[in-house]
Amino acid sequence: MAHKLRLIPLGGLGEIGKNMMLFEHGDDALLVDAGLMFPENDMLGIDYIIPDFRYVLERKDKVRGIVVTHGHEDHTGAIKHVMQQIDAPIYATPLTRGLLEVKLRDARLFDRVTLKTVNAGDSETIGPFGVEFFHVCHSIPDGVGLGLTTPAGLIVHSGDFKFDHTPVDGWPTDYAKLAEFSGRGVLALLSDSTNADKAGWTPSEAVIDPAFDEVFRQAPGRILVATFASLISRIQQVLNAAYRHGRKMALVGASMVENAKMAQKLGYLTVPEGMLIPTDEALRLAPAKVVIMTTGTQGEPSSILGRLSEGRNRQFDLIANDTIVLSSHPVPGNEEMVHRTINKLLRRGARVIYDPIAPVHVSGHASAEEMKLLIHLVKPRNFIPIHGELRHLTQHAAIAREVGVPADNIAVVENGTVLEFENGRLSVGDRIPGGYVYVDGSGVGDIGPSVMREREALAQDGFVIVNLRVNKTGKLADKPEIISRGFVFVRDAEEMFATAQEQIAAAIDRLNGAAASPQALRDRVQQSLSDFFYAELKRRPMIFTLINEV
Amino acid sequence: MAHKLRLIPLGGLGEIGKNMMLFEHGDDALLVDAGLMFPENDMLGIDYIIPDFRYVLERKDKVRGIVVTHGHEDHTGAIKHVMQQIDAPIYATPLTRGLLEVKLRDARLFDRVTLKTVNAGDSETIGPFGVEFFHVCHSIPDGVGLGLTTPAGLIVHSGDFKFDHTPVDGWPTDYAKLAEFSGRGVLALLSDSTNADKAGWTPSEAVIDPAFDEVFRQAPGRILVATFASLISRIQQVLNAAYRHGRKMALVGASMVENAKMAQKLGYLTVPEGMLIPTDEALRLAPAKVVIMTTGTQGEPSSILGRLSEGRNRQFDLIANDTIVLSSHPVPGNEEMVHRTINKLLRRGARVIYDPIAPVHVSGHASAEEMKLLIHLVKPRNFIPIHGELRHLTQHAAIAREVGVPADNIAVVENGTVLEFENGRLSVGDRIPGGYVYVDGSGVGDIGPSVMREREALAQDGFVIVNLRVNKTGKLADKPEIISRGFVFVRDAEEMFATAQEQIAAAIDRLNGAAASPQALRDRVQQSLSDFFYAELKRRPMIFTLINEV
Repeated sequence: MAHKLRLIPLGGLGEIGKNMMLFEHGDDALLVDAGLMFPENDMLGIDYIIPDFRYVLERKDKVRGIVVTHGHEDHTGAIKHVMQQIDAPIYATPLTRGLLEVKLRDARLFDRVTLKTVNAGDSETIGPFGVEFFHVCHSIPDGVGLGLTTPAGLIVHSGDFKFDHTPVDGWPTDYAKLAEFSGRGVLALLSDSTNADKAGWTPSEAVIDPAFDEVFRQAPGRILVATFASLISRIQQVLNAAYRHGRKMALVGASMVENAKMAQKLGYLTVPEGMLIPTDEALRLAPAKVVIMTTGTQGEPSSILGRLSEGRNRQFDLIANDTIVLSSHPVPGNEEMVHRTINKLLRRGARVIYDPIAPVHVSGHASAEEMKLLIHLVKPRNFIPIHGELRHLTQHAAIAREVGVPADNIAVVENGTVLEFENGRLSVGDRIPGGYVYVDGSGVGDIGPSVMREREALAQDGFVIVNLRVNKTGKLADKPEIISRGFVFVRDAEEMFATAQEQIAAAIDRLNGAAASPQALRDRVQQSLSDFFYAELKRRPMIFTLINEV
Repeated sequence: MAHKLRLIPLGGLGEIGKNMMLFEHGDDALLVDAGLMFPENDMLGIDYIIPDFRYVLERKDKVRGIVVTHGHEDHTGAIKHVMQQIDAPIYATPLTRGLLEVKLRDARLFDRVTLKTVNAGDSETIGPFGVEFFHVCHSIPDGVGLGLTTPAGLIVHSGDFKFDHTPVDGWPTDYAKLAEFSGRGVLALLSDSTNADKAGWTPSEAVIDPAFDEVFRQAPGRILVATFASLISRIQQVLNAAYRHGRKMALVGASMVENAKMAQKLGYLTVPEGMLIPTDEALRLAPAKVVIMTTGTQGEPSSILGRLSEGRNRQFDLIANDTIVLSSHPVPGNEEMVHRTINKLLRRGARVIYDPIAPVHVSGHASAEEMKLLIHLVKPRNFIPIHGELRHLTQHAAIAREVGVPADNIAVVENGTVLEFENGRLSVGDRIPGGYVYVDGSGVGDIGPSVMREREALAQDGFVIVNLRVNKTGKLADKPEIISRGFVFVRDAEEMFATAQEQIAAAIDRLNGAAASPQALRDRVQQSLSDFFYAELKRRPMIFTLINEV
């Protein structure tokens, strides 16, 4: 075989290969996932982040297909951006396909995209790649891992997975398939590293049931459960608990209602007759007969939970004896907002239950012992940790060494680093652009480090505009006009600004019409003002001087 | 007794009574602690936060003393602001006093402040309050709790505490004193709630020793340990490990060196002869013979660890086989920065050890079972959870009920809520200003919600200035000048700005000199521009229009 198989994890903050992964062989390529990530706290004004996939675009005619492993945003959220520019069929299981459909319709792309439905257990030939889809448990139903028969050998991609022996949908990860792969000989395993620093075994989703039973037994009034809109299995669990305890349930919030409808239609959510009721009907029932499920677990001020925490929700408000359950963990970076929301809900008199107060949430990702089991099941020749920050990959590599994978056969790399396979050997190749691209409003990639530095500076100390009217001899025609935002509370700073006006006038006077250029005048004014404000307040606002000859 | 005893937790973000607490009785008052908190991620540009203590200032002549329980920033960091305005003696144990001294000297207040040294076990009479200082274990030596004999009865204040049976300094919490208090009858217990949502018992500092032994055994080269500058006991533990494993140790970073010097001088740090060496000497030794201790555990870019992670440290850089230990946990809100620093250190080839990879840090605060033990030791009539967010206080109250404190005798309140004691009964009184005050540069309290909203808006989408020169007939004299920052990358947006100039000109043309006022002209321009930018980019920068008649 003349060509090497090239495998490239692509962009999206620190998480490696999570949002996108490219398999490349000669004139053919296969893309796995097309997700987004949410910005970190210091990425000011950014809406979300997508992989920098210009390398893929430069060879877009080679792309034979796009496989999406499951329906979470970090694997599907960039599909619009990808499908606007690449013409290749998408392969996904029914639920994942359903969720992609919604996105593609929103982006008015549905009509020109080919969506192919596959089921766990199916095989597809996509260019030179034979793709076997196998079921994995995760916090959304219908997730798959991939067995990729490539010209270089068999590569197993875990997807996002956990080994749950008692999953909500009763469908465990496909151990038999994994063992069968190992019989065939696996060139490399790519495995989810999210929880590599968690010892032991991630608890089954089943542990949540008794926790909910306890909550339901003790709740004196209404129960409001908040979780992620895509956590279909959690919706099922709460529905089941409501059924056991004689309560009806209403879903509130467009995304959750949409997802539940889609899941119910496709058979991924089982709703006993009459259990799911409209919100207005739920609000008329006795409080002890109701469960309301909604979103807002990340402390988003615009979510229903966020609005309830501040008494700003229009359709309904908190009432006495409400119990609120946060069936979720804060996404890293959101801790402050989540905790603030909990405090506000408590302040408004609600009872609030969340992990670790009670085990009302478990992770959807494998912990260390499950990672070891996967390696033993698959027996890969080479091991490539993916889906996690560098620190998770490093720890996952340590786990792999612990269970016998030779250190030389493990590659810990970052996004944009090409991994190559030749004659069964794994090597690290060149680097391609594999970072991330900011999406802000409708601008994709136009915001870079310089604009971000400006936003940072503005956020720190605000700015000051000085508007000068100068006559032909370089003298001030009238008092300088000063405008500021984000710098001081203007009404309390009138005296300081009056002094600033005098300082400017004095600085211009000293020049005595002798400024070599408007730029020299501007520099003089800005320096004098900057020194003045620093002496007054130890702050350094951005200063702009406009010079108008009148 | 004619007066009620009033007890008021004061400001500092969501944590209640942590930074300051006021005991008030008739014409006398006692202040406990004077700390700062670091701003949350959305408090843009703010350096730190101090309690809003204007209630205390309004009656500052009543303040008979200020008791500081231990030397951490969140209990000492506002001392400068308090001592600038209140004239009363400070009471603190030797190490706490030493750390306060440094702060007061920096603020040029040392000469006019009375510092009284007390030791655990001592009693002082401060106005009508008898204050007994008793030793508590915490993550800094020489911490105390307080037994306050007030005209209303005996109140026990836990300080920040844990029940460590094997503390580094061999000095456990004073159980006997606590039991003695209970014999006398305790009116109320105020207890540290920080870890109320952690089940069980916080591990002893001693568990860190074997973890460090393991790290030292496996480290092939230098070891760099990062921790908080004030964590004197951790410095002792690393020093001991270095001694056991035949390494010398250097401390790097002004605050850590200062604290260690102070602790050593006062006998709180035991340094075997020749073990502590200067950094330049450490850098000349064989890597396997060296430990360097430093700060930067919160991902601060300006710290030594932050600089090392980016190859920007001047005195020394990372070398092959360096092992870096983060002996700390991220303070909530700092997770992203800490994880980013770890990833960068790994990228630069270092081995990085941190909890949960290895148990190299434990909390300094009691967990649920210790909280129960304290309640059983003290047997208080009333219980007031303090030191924690509302969610921690709520959970601590649940713990107290579990061990038999009647619900009616528990008060969960927020900062600024007055608690009153009369005839042994606890009641919730009025509310006073008890929020927090932003410190930004040298400005204390001048930044409020409106400036913060401006900073937020600027951070989101930046701003645009339009400078218009208009002649007497209301027509443009020349092309509008447009300046923007934080909005778009200007060099790539020249075309858009040219169109914007045309839009402005057209809008003014349509007015045909008929604008009723400069304000009407300004509104017209700003609306047209705002619509244009939103249509182009779905962004809404702040827009300022300056109108200069020429």
